[in-house]
Amino acid sequence: MDFEFSPKVKALQAKLAAFMETHVHPSENRYWEEAEENRAQGNAWVPTRIVEELKPKARAEGLWNLWRPKDHGGTLTNLEYAPLCEIMGRVTWAPEVFNCSAPDTGNMEVLLRYGTPEQQDRWLAPLLEGKIRSAFLMTEPGVASSDATNVQCRIERRGVEYVINGHKWWSSGAGDPRCRIYIVMGKTDPDNANRHKQQSMVLVPADAPGVKIMRALRVFGFDDAPHGHMEIALKDVRVPAANMLLGDGRGFEIAQGRLGPGRIHHCMRVIGQAERALELMCKRLKKRVAFGKPVAEHGVWHERIAESRIRIEQARLLTLKAAHMMDTVGNKVAKAEIAMIKVLAPTMAQQVIDWAIQAHGGGGVCQEFPLAWMYSWNRCLRLADGPDEVHRAQIAKIELGKYL
Amino acid sequence: MDFEFSPKVKALQAKLAAFMETHVHPSENRYWEEAEENRAQGNAWVPTRIVEELKPKARAEGLWNLWRPKDHGGTLTNLEYAPLCEIMGRVTWAPEVFNCSAPDTGNMEVLLRYGTPEQQDRWLAPLLEGKIRSAFLMTEPGVASSDATNVQCRIERRGVEYVINGHKWWSSGAGDPRCRIYIVMGKTDPDNANRHKQQSMVLVPADAPGVKIMRALRVFGFDDAPHGHMEIALKDVRVPAANMLLGDGRGFEIAQGRLGPGRIHHCMRVIGQAERALELMCKRLKKRVAFGKPVAEHGVWHERIAESRIRIEQARLLTLKAAHMMDTVGNKVAKAEIAMIKVLAPTMAQQVIDWAIQAHGGGGVCQEFPLAWMYSWNRCLRLADGPDEVHRAQIAKIELGKYL
Amino acid sequence: MDFEFSPKVKALQAKLAAFMETHVHPSENRYWEEAEENRAQGNAWVPTRIVEELKPKARAEGLWNLWRPKDHGGTLTNLEYAPLCEIMGRVTWAPEVFNCSAPDTGNMEVLLRYGTPEQQDRWLAPLLEGKIRSAFLMTEPGVASSDATNVQCRIERRGVEYVINGHKWWSSGAGDPRCRIYIVMGKTDPDNANRHKQQSMVLVPADAPGVKIMRALRVFGFDDAPHGHMEIALKDVRVPAANMLLGDGRGFEIAQGRLGPGRIHHCMRVIGQAERALELMCKRLKKRVAFGKPVAEHGVWHERIAESRIRIEQARLLTLKAAHMMDTVGNKVAKAEIAMIKVLAPTMAQQVIDWAIQAHGGGGVCQEFPLAWMYSWNRCLRLADGPDEVHRAQIAKIELGKYL
Amino acid sequence: MDFEFSPKVKALQAKLAAFMETHVHPSENRYWEEAEENRAQGNAWVPTRIVEELKPKARAEGLWNLWRPKDHGGTLTNLEYAPLCEIMGRVTWAPEVFNCSAPDTGNMEVLLRYGTPEQQDRWLAPLLEGKIRSAFLMTEPGVASSDATNVQCRIERRGVEYVINGHKWWSSGAGDPRCRIYIVMGKTDPDNANRHKQQSMVLVPADAPGVKIMRALRVFGFDDAPHGHMEIALKDVRVPAANMLLGDGRGFEIAQGRLGPGRIHHCMRVIGQAERALELMCKRLKKRVAFGKPVAEHGVWHERIAESRIRIEQARLLTLKAAHMMDTVGNKVAKAEIAMIKVLAPTMAQQVIDWAIQAHGGGGVCQEFPLAWMYSWNRCLRLADGPDEVHRAQIAKIELGKYL
Repeated sequence: MDFEFSPKVKALQAKLAAFMETHVHPSENRYWEEAEENRAQGNAWVPTRIVEELKPKARAEGLWNLWRPKDHGGTLTNLEYAPLCEIMGRVTWAPEVFNCSAPDTGNMEVLLRYGTPEQQDRWLAPLLEGKIRSAFLMTEPGVASSDATNVQCRIERRGVEYVINGHKWWSSGAGDPRCRIYIVMGKTDPDNANRHKQQSMVLVPADAPGVKIMRALRVFGFDDAPHGHMEIALKDVRVPAANMLLGDGRGFEIAQGRLGPGRIHHCMRVIGQAERALELMCKRLKKRVAFGKPVAEHGVWHERIAESRIRIEQARLLTLKAAHMMDTVGNKVAKAEIAMIKVLAPTMAQQVIDWAIQAHGGGGVCQEFPLAWMYSWNRCLRLADGPDEVHRAQIAKIELGKYL
Repeated sequence: MDFEFSPKVKALQAKLAAFMETHVHPSENRYWEEAEENRAQGNAWVPTRIVEELKPKARAEGLWNLWRPKDHGGTLTNLEYAPLCEIMGRVTWAPEVFNCSAPDTGNMEVLLRYGTPEQQDRWLAPLLEGKIRSAFLMTEPGVASSDATNVQCRIERRGVEYVINGHKWWSSGAGDPRCRIYIVMGKTDPDNANRHKQQSMVLVPADAPGVKIMRALRVFGFDDAPHGHMEIALKDVRVPAANMLLGDGRGFEIAQGRLGPGRIHHCMRVIGQAERALELMCKRLKKRVAFGKPVAEHGVWHERIAESRIRIEQARLLTLKAAHMMDTVGNKVAKAEIAMIKVLAPTMAQQVIDWAIQAHGGGGVCQEFPLAWMYSWNRCLRLADGPDEVHRAQIAKIELGKYL
Repeated sequence: MDFEFSPKVKALQAKLAAFMETHVHPSENRYWEEAEENRAQGNAWVPTRIVEELKPKARAEGLWNLWRPKDHGGTLTNLEYAPLCEIMGRVTWAPEVFNCSAPDTGNMEVLLRYGTPEQQDRWLAPLLEGKIRSAFLMTEPGVASSDATNVQCRIERRGVEYVINGHKWWSSGAGDPRCRIYIVMGKTDPDNANRHKQQSMVLVPADAPGVKIMRALRVFGFDDAPHGHMEIALKDVRVPAANMLLGDGRGFEIAQGRLGPGRIHHCMRVIGQAERALELMCKRLKKRVAFGKPVAEHGVWHERIAESRIRIEQARLLTLKAAHMMDTVGNKVAKAEIAMIKVLAPTMAQQVIDWAIQAHGGGGVCQEFPLAWMYSWNRCLRLADGPDEVHRAQIAKIELGKYL
Repeated sequence: MDFEFSPKVKALQAKLAAFMETHVHPSENRYWEEAEENRAQGNAWVPTRIVEELKPKARAEGLWNLWRPKDHGGTLTNLEYAPLCEIMGRVTWAPEVFNCSAPDTGNMEVLLRYGTPEQQDRWLAPLLEGKIRSAFLMTEPGVASSDATNVQCRIERRGVEYVINGHKWWSSGAGDPRCRIYIVMGKTDPDNANRHKQQSMVLVPADAPGVKIMRALRVFGFDDAPHGHMEIALKDVRVPAANMLLGDGRGFEIAQGRLGPGRIHHCMRVIGQAERALELMCKRLKKRVAFGKPVAEHGVWHERIAESRIRIEQARLLTLKAAHMMDTVGNKVAKAEIAMIKVLAPTMAQQVIDWAIQAHGGGGVCQEFPLAWMYSWNRCLRLADGPDEVHRAQIAKIELGKYL
C-alpha cells in the first residue's frame, strides 16, 4: 500500500498544471465572453476561438488524448490518468483543449473497443484528431431511463438498413456544429426474454434525414453553449446495417463497458471543481471583512473549510482506489466501488461548492464566479448515468449479498 | 390558541386559488415562452403580455395590492395576507398579476410609511396602479453588504441636491423597462460615531444622468428577464434634496422597518413553492415506473415525501406565528421569529425542491418544470437580505442574552 | 388563527412552573442519588422517597391527573394539557409527581374508555390515586413489532378463562414493585382474514402465575430504575374471561385509540427536554473559556443555538396543532399530523441535545448532567410505538393518496 | 500508488482474524456476563477471567504488543499496524487480549520514547507484560480542557519531590484494580510566557497518598466496568523528582507526540466497529419481515446500507493515508490528516451505528447487541482528545494558511 503518485504521474501532473497555469486559467473568462458575444449576436452555437487556439498547443506538448486506454494505443492506466482529470476539471471547458472531454472520450472508447475498422476510419479517426465531436443518445423524456428496459426508441432492421424512431434528450454536445456522429441506444428486440439483450447501439450521423434537434435544454438556466444538451427527435432515420455497434442486442453490454472509465473521469473532474471551490472560498473569506474582522475568522467557516477538506481527501482516495481496481481486477469486480464514487463525488462537490457560494454572497450565484455553473453541473451528475438511488440500490444489493 | 384561518381569510384563499386555477396555472408556460421569444429576437427586456392581460382581471376581482398594510389604507393584517402569498407563490410570475411582487411591495411600503406627499404623488401613485416598477439598490459587489457599515456608496449634499456615487448589484427588477424609480442606500455621514446613523436612502429616477446599467446578473444561468437583477453604476448622479427619504442618517431605520413584512411575504411564497414541488414530486413518482413498479412505491421516496410534508407544515406555522407577532407586538419584539423564518423557509424549500428535482430526473434540472428555477431562487434567498449566518448569529445573540 | 395560549392555560402553566421551580428542580439530583444508593445496596427497584413526598403536594395544589380527558372526567383539552407536558418534561421523573407519567396515563385512558365498571373499580381507581402502577406489554423480541400482524403472543379462550403465552419486552414501568397490572396485546384469532381483528388486549395482574420478569433492559446502559424496561415471559398465564378489554379481536382498535394522546404527551415532554438542553447549552457556553474568549463567542455555536431555537419553535407549533386537531376533528382525521410529530419531535430533540452534549464536553456524556439520559431516551422514542420509517411511510401514503 | 496491503500485512490480518474468530467472538458475551455478575455481587471492578484466559493464547501466537513502534523495538509501521486495529476493534474488549488497548498503548509509548531507564524498568516493563495497567490524567471537570492553557492541576517542585494538586476526570482504565500508574498532566510553570511550556507530565503511582478516586463516570449509562472512567482528586500528592517525564515544561510536547499514533488506533478501531455494525444491520434486515417482505427489501435501507459502505471505505482510506504519512513524513507534516481522521472516523461510525440501531429496533438500544455501547463510545470520542470543533479549527487554519 502506497499513497504516493509515481514519478511518471507526478511529472505529468506538473506539466499539465503548468499548461493550465500558463494557457487556460488566464483565459478562463474569454470562453464565457466569447459564448456571451455569440449569444448576443443571435447564435450561441459556435465553437470558441480560445479552445481552438489552445488545442494545437496542448497537442504540441503531448497533452492530447490522455484518456486513451493503455490496451488501445494509449500510455496511461486509469490510475495514472485519473489525477490528470482532476487538474483539467478545475476549469469547465479545459478538458476539450486536451481532447479529453465528455462525451467524446466515452464515445471514442466505444469505437476503439467495439468499432469495426470502417467505423473507426470514418468516425474515430477525426474524433481522435479533435476535428469532429460526438453525442450519446440514451436518455428519453418519456420514461425512467435509469431502468434500461424502459427504453422506447426502436431500431428496426429493414433489409440492409436500420430504421430508427425515438425521442431522446440530454444529448450533451449535440449543440456543437462540429458534432457529426451520434451513438444511439434503442431496442432491436423488445420482446427478448433477456431484458439486457433487447437493446442495441447504432451509429447515426447527425445530418441523417429524420434527425431533428428540438431544443436546447437549460441546466438551471445555463444553455452550456456551444456544447449544449439537446432534445432530439429521430423519425424514420435510416442508416446502413454496418452502422450497428458490436451486433444486435449488445447495447447493454456496451453501455456497461463504457460507463466505468467515464465515471472515474467525471468524478476526478468534480473533485478538481471541489478543490477549486475550496480555494475560492478560502481566498474570499480572507479578503472580505464583516462585523469587525475578516470573515475567515468567523468560526462557522472553520467548520465548513475543515469539512470540505476532509470530504475532498476521502473522495479522491476512493476514486483513485476505484481506478486502481479498474486497472487490476477490472470493472466487473470494481462495480461496487465505481457505483460508490458515482454517488459520492458529485454529492461531495455539491456541498463544498454550496459552501463556497455562501462565502461569495451574491457573487456566488451569478456569472461572476464559476461556482453556480459548477453547482448546477454537479446537481446534474447526480442524475446522469443513473440517479443516486439506483447506484445506492446496487451497492446495497452487493452488500446484502454477502450474507445468507 | 387556534389553528384555523378566519372565515374572511378562507374566503380570500378560495377566491385567489380560483383565480390562479382559472387564469394563471393554464398560462404558466406562456410567460416563459414569451420571454424566450423576446430573448430569441434579441431583447429579453420586454414585459410579458400575459401578465398585462391578467392584471386588470385581478384588479376587477379585488385581488389587487393585497399586501397594503391595514394601518396604511389596506384591509389585511400580516396574518391575513400571509396565506395569500403562499398561493401566489406557487407560480413564480403570479404575484405581479396582483401588484404584489417584490421588490415593489417593499418599496411601496417605504413610500407609504416614510414618503412625503410629493414623493408619494410622483412615485407611489403609479406604483399602486401597477404602471411603473421600482428597484432597491442596496447590495454592493465590493464589500460584505450584510454588514451595513460596509456600504461604500456615497450620497453627498451639494446645495439643493444630493450627489450619488456608488456601485450596486442585485438590483432586482431593474431590468424591466417600466422600472422608473430606485431607492438607493448610501452613506451621507460615513464618520458618524453611531454606525447606524451613517446611512441614508434616497430616491433616484432610473433615467437620471449618471445611472448606468452595467449588466444583467444571471441567477445560476437564469437571466430572469424581463424582471432582471442588474449591476448598476451611479456616477455623479444628482437628485433634488427633496428626494431624501425620511431624512439624512435614517437609512438603517428604514431598512429595518422595510424588512419585516417582506420576509414574511418571501417566506410564504417559498412555502407555496415547496407545496408545489411536493405536489409535482408525488404526481411524477406515481406516473413513472422503474424496476417493475411505480417509483412512488420505492421506499426511499416515502422518507422524502414524509420529511417534505413535515417540514412544510412546521415552516408554515412558524411563519404565520411571526406574522401574528408582527400584527400584535410589532416587528421589534418579533425580530427573533422574523430572523428564524428568514433562515428556515428557503432552506426548507430548497430541500423539498431538491428532492422533487431528483424525482424528475433530467426534467427536474431543465426548463421542462419550474423546479430548477425555484431551486435557484431559494438558493439566492439564503443570501438576499443578509446571509443565513448573519440571521443565525442574531438569533443566537437573543438566545444567549436570556442568561447572565 | 391565534398563537396565544388562553388565560386558563397561562394560569396553569404558571402554577405548574412554580411547582417545578419550588419542589422539583431543587430536588432533581435527589432522585438519581436515591436510585444510585438503592442500586449500591443491591436493589435498585425501590420507589424513590422524593417522588412519594412530592405527590401529595402536587395533588394538594390541584396538579393531579391533568392528562384526564375532558370527556372522561377531566378538565383539560389536549391543546390545554399539551403545554403542561412540556413543563413536566423538563425533569425526567417529574411527570409521576403529578400522576401524569407514561405508560400509566395511556393505560388509565384505555381503562377509562374501554374498561368495564369492574375493571375500572379494580385497576383504574388505584391508578388514578397513584397507589399502583401499570405496564403495557406489546413489543416482542422475536419479530418486527411495528407490523401488528407479527404479534406472536397467543391469548386463547379456555372456558371461563383466557390462557396467555408470549414473550414481551420493553415493558416500561414493570420494574417498579408497585406495578400491579399489565395490559397485554396478543392474538385471539390469528387466522382472521381481517389482519386488524386478530389481536386482543387483556388485563393480566403482575402477580399472576406464569408471569416471569426475565431481565431489565438497559437503555444505552441506563437501567432506568426504579421504573425499568422489562423483558417478561408469559407462560400459560390464566386470567378470568372478564379481563378481556372491549372484546375479542378489538386490540388493534384500542391500540389506535390509545396512541394519539400519548404521542402528544411524549412529544411535548421531549420539547421540554430540548428547551432544557438549549438552556443548559447557552449557560455552559457562556461560562467556559477557550482560546481567549467565552465559548459562547465561538461562531460555530451561534449556528447551533439558532438552529436549536428554530427547530424547537417549529416542533412545538406542529405538536400543538396536532393537539388542536385531536380536540376538534378527532384522531382519525389528525392521523397524518400525529405521525408527523411522532417522527419530528424526538429527532429534533436528539439533535438539540446532541449539540448540548458537545457543549458540555465530557460532562455531557456522563451523569453530571441530564443530557446523556435525555439523548438516550429520545433515541428510544424513535423506535417506541413504531420506528420512524413506519410513520414516514404512513405520512407518504396519505400524501400520495391526494393524487390519482 | 497502490491500494493493496503487503503480503506481510495480509498474513497478519488473516492470523488475527482467525484468532478473533476462534477465541474472541464466541466469548464476546462472556465478558459482559462476567461484568454483570460482578456488578450484581457488589463489586464491578474485577478484571474478567475471559480476557486473562485469552492473553497467554494471543501472546503464544505472537499477537502481543503489536502496537510497538518499529523504531522502539516493534516490527510494524503505523500503516502495517492500522489494519490490525480495525480487526481488534470489532469487539470492544478485544484489544486488551493483545495488550493493545488504550490508554495503555499510549502510555507505554510515552514511556518508550521519553522514559528514563528507571521509569521504564519500574513501569514500562510490567505494562509490556500486561501485568499492570495505567491511566492518563489530563482532562479536568472545571475547565475547557481542549485548550491546554486552561489546565488547573499544579505540579510544584519542593526539594527532591513534586507536590501535585488537581482534580481530573475521564481517567479511563483507572477503575481497574490492576491500574498502578498514572501519567498526570499539570502546570509546573503557569506563568511561562510560552503557553506551551507551562505544562509538564509526571508519573504518579495509583496508590500514592493523596490520590482519591471520587466516582466512576458513566458513559451514557454504561459504567464500562471493570475498565472505568474515573474522577480523581489529587491532594498534596508527593512523588520523587525522578518521576518527571522528559523534564519540566515539556508536557505539551509529550502530549503532541503521544496523540498521533493513538488517533490512528482509535480511528481504525471505530472503523472496525462500523464494519461490524453494517454487518449486523444487513443480517438483521434480511431476517426480519414487516409488511409482507423482508425489511432488507424496504428501499429506505438500501440508501443507508450504501451510504454506510461508502463512508466506511472513505474513512478507512484516509486513515490509512494518515498512517502512511506518519511513517514517511512524520506526525508534524501529517497533522492535518491526523486531525481529519480524528473528526471523521467517530462521526462516520456514529452514523452507521445509529442506522444499525434503527434496524434492530428495541434490541439496538439495549444490551442485546453491542450497538448501543459502540454508539456511546463513538459519541465520547468526538470529545476525547479535543472536541471536533478544535480539530476542525486546526484543519481550517492549515487550509487558510495556504493563501495570502
